[in-house]
Amino acid sequence: MAAPSPVSPLAPKSYPDLPPVEGVRFATAAAGIKYKGRTDVMLALFDKGTQAAGVFTRSKCPSAPVDWCRARLKGGKARALVVNSGNANAFTGRNGLEQAKFTAMLAAKATGASPAEIFLASTGVIGEPLDARKFEGVFEQMAAAARPDGLFEAAKAIMTTDTYPKVATATAEIGGVTVTIAGMAKGAGMIAPDMATMLSYVFTDALIAAPALQAMLSKGVEASFNCVTVDSDTSTSDTLMLFATGAAARRGAPKITASGDRRLAGFKKALNALLMDLAHQVVRDGEGCRKFVEILVEGAASARAAKRVAMSIANSPLVKTAIAGEDANWGRIVAAVGKAGEKADRDKLAIWFGGIRVAHKGLRDPAYNEAEVSQVMKRETIPIRVAIGAGGTGAARVWTCDLTKEYVAINGDYRS
Amino acid sequence: MAAPSPVSPLAPKSYPDLPPVEGVRFATAAAGIKYKGRTDVMLALFDKGTQAAGVFTRSKCPSAPVDWCRARLKGGKARALVVNSGNANAFTGRNGLEQAKFTAMLAAKATGASPAEIFLASTGVIGEPLDARKFEGVFEQMAAAARPDGLFEAAKAIMTTDTYPKVATATAEIGGVTVTIAGMAKGAGMIAPDMATMLSYVFTDALIAAPALQAMLSKGVEASFNCVTVDSDTSTSDTLMLFATGAAARRGAPKITASGDRRLAGFKKALNALLMDLAHQVVRDGEGCRKFVEILVEGAASARAAKRVAMSIANSPLVKTAIAGEDANWGRIVAAVGKAGEKADRDKLAIWFGGIRVAHKGLRDPAYNEAEVSQVMKRETIPIRVAIGAGGTGAARVWTCDLTKEYVAINGDYRS
Repeated sequence: MAAPSPVSPLAPKSYPDLPPVEGVRFATAAAGIKYKGRTDVMLALFDKGTQAAGVFTRSKCPSAPVDWCRARLKGGKARALVVNSGNANAFTGRNGLEQAKFTAMLAAKATGASPAEIFLASTGVIGEPLDARKFEGVFEQMAAAARPDGLFEAAKAIMTTDTYPKVATATAEIGGVTVTIAGMAKGAGMIAPDMATMLSYVFTDALIAAPALQAMLSKGVEASFNCVTVDSDTSTSDTLMLFATGAAARRGAPKITASGDRRLAGFKKALNALLMDLAHQVVRDGEGCRKFVEILVEGAASARAAKRVAMSIANSPLVKTAIAGEDANWGRIVAAVGKAGEKADRDKLAIWFGGIRVAHKGLRDPAYNEAEVSQVMKRETIPIRVAIGAGGTGAARVWTCDLTKEYVAINGDYRS
Repeated sequence: MAAPSPVSPLAPKSYPDLPPVEGVRFATAAAGIKYKGRTDVMLALFDKGTQAAGVFTRSKCPSAPVDWCRARLKGGKARALVVNSGNANAFTGRNGLEQAKFTAMLAAKATGASPAEIFLASTGVIGEPLDARKFEGVFEQMAAAARPDGLFEAAKAIMTTDTYPKVATATAEIGGVTVTIAGMAKGAGMIAPDMATMLSYVFTDALIAAPALQAMLSKGVEASFNCVTVDSDTSTSDTLMLFATGAAARRGAPKITASGDRRLAGFKKALNALLMDLAHQVVRDGEGCRKFVEILVEGAASARAAKRVAMSIANSPLVKTAIAGEDANWGRIVAAVGKAGEKADRDKLAIWFGGIRVAHKGLRDPAYNEAEVSQVMKRETIPIRVAIGAGGTGAARVWTCDLTKEYVAINGDYRS
């Protein structure tokens, strides 16, 4: 059994003050799903009329809660969100869906909502049956205790191998009225989001209709969660949801129905920055990590090609172990560019570590100073820039962490 | 600096007797490219008329020797092969190609051949300039010393992070005459061959024309080298070549010009088995490995889909760390099936470890005994079978090794 991990050295040094989001209340409980002596379930209660949007894993083997949420999202309405840690309820067959249904039924009963307005997620071990009877009586107590300022505790309750809770907040103006956005995320391993991340929930009091929320969320995820990777392993449970309670309408916020509405400009900017913040927090808690790595690829035939090359670099075990060893081994970056399958001109390739050009026109930059580059490699954040010389202007930026012995230790005995 | 690795626990317990291949002679030397106190260059000399075939990396950033060999292969004729370790001559620009040319010129002069009949490879660090002047005067001595029984020493000279030399031999009958096949391979990390492996050379005294050799080699590589992976990192230098000296014609072996010739049936079988043997030896020397893993995927829509799923499992860091931890964590196999992007029916999925079914019809097999599976996980070879239930008969078999802390240690400080 791996020893409990200390907090990631890349964890945020402090947490923001989290203002309440009008129309949302949170509660947590210890339902004893798997962990002892800690909370393992969170409940978010939404005011009537709350609109919902979501993006989910592209895995062909999604978890039962992902199936449940996809089907429920068609209504666009939400009254509650239930997330448990300790068990993913994935690869649990028909029984898994029954347990999801039973969970939603219990939550509906405790909150006075319809099961169709309850959203669910489970995170933890795959393949173990979830016993939803453990929630019996729990949601009633949670509903009674739910508080507007409970987001931080909720973020803690859904942690698995995470070493710190991940939260972020922002404000924006819509039609002259200030609205609040706040969100949480969890995830540290099995992180290669393909549509969304492990689990992330964002809440706002803005009054925005579900289709407009969905359009903004689907766009926002592309440059944030879909551009981070810890270990190239896409989860069966990836879920990112955005809930808008509309409570700000009482303070005069206008009702927005189209994502193209110009009054959303500031909101979109704030939402995208918040999604990026949460996505980076997930990488910074990458299992066993010590380095936060930003990879910028330029000069590709298209943005899509640039992203594929950037992800090939970000997922290369040899690049990631070199970074763990503080070794500016740009030859491995060349290999990762080469294997990506996208057009690249080997003889025009240039590579920078932290602004220092180490390779130029397809060979080692004669001017580069190994000692200077070594200093860059000792930093906590390593920026890597790669111009692949394919003659285009396609660019992409992705984020990852290093691959250390601790990653192997954490994952060599997680299930037991 | 990582300590020198002991020999892989998965290394062959003994080596085969390597009979000479008529028409080929080998020599090795210590040219001082990078390593001290060991040989680092091999020369293979071929009789006149030797036919050659090759498959190379699909990397978009191939090494200079790969470019050189691709261009030379059009002639289909070979008189010599020069391979050095310690420097990959990859990402070395125009100078890299000049060094390759200069190496071929030196070898041609020493052997009386044309530079166009000299094949080259370099393996080691990427991006460091190769100084081919170190070969001056060396090839003359090697040509004089070349011996038919030097294959084993040649295999040693091209090792980098390999912990043992990889050789194999076979015989086959063509037209009633016995011909010999013998080969070598090197590779331990940056192994995810995409057309060929790091470096592998196979020799035969059969009289087979280059186009027929090429057809057999291209086909043979698909089920062998292109079905193994150590770390998902495709090399810039992957090269597999097959040389046929035709010397067996003196003993009555017929001349074969078409790969469809029925007299090649036995030869193809022997060649394919030998390629498989060498490919497995590469995996069994995977950096830091302790387990040899065979993954069989069945029930896919096509063989191509099955291979994509199998490779997704074989390259999953979470599957590989679980195997290192002797943990039958089949949930991670489900996740790897899901992320492969191919059709799979989660609710029909079945998974076996070493013949013990652990998952069935999309959930944990109620009959499986954890203690029995634990015994399987303690073995050196772990067979995993996955029926993905996509309604087809597509199947694929691939091989990989586990991911250990030693892999990280070896690669965290290789360049220095």
